[in-house]
Amino acid sequence: MGKETRFTVLGAGHGGKAMAAHLALQGFPVTLWNRTLDNILVIALRGGIEVESQDEGPRGFGRLAQVTSDMKEAVQGADVLMVVVPSTAHADIAAAAAPHLRDGQIVVLNPGRTGGALEFRRVLRESDCQADVTIAETETLLYASRSDGPAQVRIFRIKEAVPLAALPATRTASVLAALASAYPQFIDGTSVLHTGLNNMGAIFHPALALLNAGRIESTSGEFQFYIDGVTPSVARVLEVLDRERVTVAAAVGIRARTAMEWLKMAYNATGTTLYEAIHNQPGYYGITAPPTLWHRYITEDVPMSLVPIAALGRRYGVAVSGIDSIIRLACVVHQTDYWRRGRTLDKLGIEQLSVDELNQLVLGGEA
Amino acid sequence: MGKETRFTVLGAGHGGKAMAAHLALQGFPVTLWNRTLDNILVIALRGGIEVESQDEGPRGFGRLAQVTSDMKEAVQGADVLMVVVPSTAHADIAAAAAPHLRDGQIVVLNPGRTGGALEFRRVLRESDCQADVTIAETETLLYASRSDGPAQVRIFRIKEAVPLAALPATRTASVLAALASAYPQFIDGTSVLHTGLNNMGAIFHPALALLNAGRIESTSGEFQFYIDGVTPSVARVLEVLDRERVTVAAAVGIRARTAMEWLKMAYNATGTTLYEAIHNQPGYYGITAPPTLWHRYITEDVPMSLVPIAALGRRYGVAVSGIDSIIRLACVVHQTDYWRRGRTLDKLGIEQLSVDELNQLVLGGEA
Repeated sequence: MGKETRFTVLGAGHGGKAMAAHLALQGFPVTLWNRTLDNILVIALRGGIEVESQDEGPRGFGRLAQVTSDMKEAVQGADVLMVVVPSTAHADIAAAAAPHLRDGQIVVLNPGRTGGALEFRRVLRESDCQADVTIAETETLLYASRSDGPAQVRIFRIKEAVPLAALPATRTASVLAALASAYPQFIDGTSVLHTGLNNMGAIFHPALALLNAGRIESTSGEFQFYIDGVTPSVARVLEVLDRERVTVAAAVGIRARTAMEWLKMAYNATGTTLYEAIHNQPGYYGITAPPTLWHRYITEDVPMSLVPIAALGRRYGVAVSGIDSIIRLACVVHQTDYWRRGRTLDKLGIEQLSVDELNQLVLGGEA
Repeated sequence: MGKETRFTVLGAGHGGKAMAAHLALQGFPVTLWNRTLDNILVIALRGGIEVESQDEGPRGFGRLAQVTSDMKEAVQGADVLMVVVPSTAHADIAAAAAPHLRDGQIVVLNPGRTGGALEFRRVLRESDCQADVTIAETETLLYASRSDGPAQVRIFRIKEAVPLAALPATRTASVLAALASAYPQFIDGTSVLHTGLNNMGAIFHPALALLNAGRIESTSGEFQFYIDGVTPSVARVLEVLDRERVTVAAAVGIRARTAMEWLKMAYNATGTTLYEAIHNQPGYYGITAPPTLWHRYITEDVPMSLVPIAALGRRYGVAVSGIDSIIRLACVVHQTDYWRRGRTLDKLGIEQLSVDELNQLVLGGEA
């Protein structure tokens, strides 16, 4: 589609601002939508977002075509809808967008966490959306960025390779093609089961937060999360959770990456144990813990990542008692039923499916 | 029995040395047994233990009648056997003592943790012990003490009132009478279900260790365990575990004390939440965390306290998913099956019993 592709970025947080501004700087017509108008008023007044970054990174004023909190406006002119909101909001975005979607549009969840595209599809169907829309999700967010002002964003890093999968996977190639001129970084993620089950945050974030709960709350997170917080015992818990995740993936026919493989691939960090590999990743030094347990590491990663992994495990016969323990402790700490809020199989619209049917659905056996 | 009562103290750790020396200072004939002879050689050579304490506490040289690692010698001359070993060793002590026990002897587990007396009884039966021995357990250890030398012990505090129950409870009065001249601090603990289910360490120790796992291992426990380690979220977990424990107790017909009630009773510490009540207990300030996770707070309190509570819950229909989560994380951290090592109902010899039969057993309905 070239520079003609009309993007709408849904969500004006750290990631959404970075994406909207970066796309605009590349010359694409960009609409930025945010549910709360107040948060984008300054951007609307100035007509765009100021971007900073280091070295070769994007910088300058990204002038936006449109800034709106009206979902109809946001959707109708777009070729590609880039959803950059916490995954807890994916279902609401789907319901709000459903009446306005039309044939040929592409929706990309940045990222899907676990089951994002499946949940989006389920909500569109329940909203009687008849449009032939392609839903895709990425394995992780492309940007590491921070917005320190209403119309400013600083981009620290743009990842070099981010897996993306469409639902069904037969459409992945066309999505990658549509995004290629803007984002050559996106690569074929095989299927949304792969992107969803290669979710490392699911393994790292909630367990690290809970096994350091007292320290996070009594020091407001003033310690190195992945260094001081990852001790040999804590790492053993991560290893068990990771093994459960990979086993769940195997039960649905997927060869997921282990955390060790991911550390090697993403950071060339190795070790004989996960403890060593994490401590051998220089990038983890200096990253402080979240300042509170009311943080997306629990509020998002438990319901949107751990719950669907555990739900798949239960459905297809994999013991997930380690993951269950973490979910349970998160429920207690937040006095919240994360199972009810979370992506159980009914929320993903797959509770009736055999493993074969599930694979048909994600790979391209859709009716 | 007066000063004629012949005591044998089994176990020469911090608590056993304090008890042996204190009994000797009171004028009782005392035998001290320890499984490993090396640990009591100096005591044997000197003939006793030097005691220090503050204020009105016991002090001086407690001369012992006998120091031995021979169980037959330890058992045969005793009227009362005071077992002061980690509860993980109760079953071994029972098996080793079984051939030597005779009618009329009293065995007191200091303390029983959860199910100590029941487990001791089961092992004696399986060892074909025919002697009419009275088994009792205390709710907590009478002494706060520390042994800093091979034949020295410092007593910090002797608790004023410690519940004790015999199995069956019809024998509690005679045990209290036999101990009265040495230990007027022991009071009627109603039944071994009460002493076992009023086990506060079960609730506090493993959860606090695990929810502060990263900090314990990365600082070697250099923080205030009950202050820095008990934050509002951590305390919410304790509240849920405590509620499960009290509900398990209710399911077997017992009104257990809540942690809040215990803090009020033991320390006059109150608050609207458990977090507040704990922080309102001045005695908790300055107590540092264990230096490692390989500590009895997990290695003993999980198998000997949490497992039997969870096992009773499962058997009698109480949801114990919070406790289960803590047990599971402990298993993972220590790569140990604490369910297999722990006091499940078969280990307690009660797996076939209805609630009525269990109560008959502990109260005095024994055949």
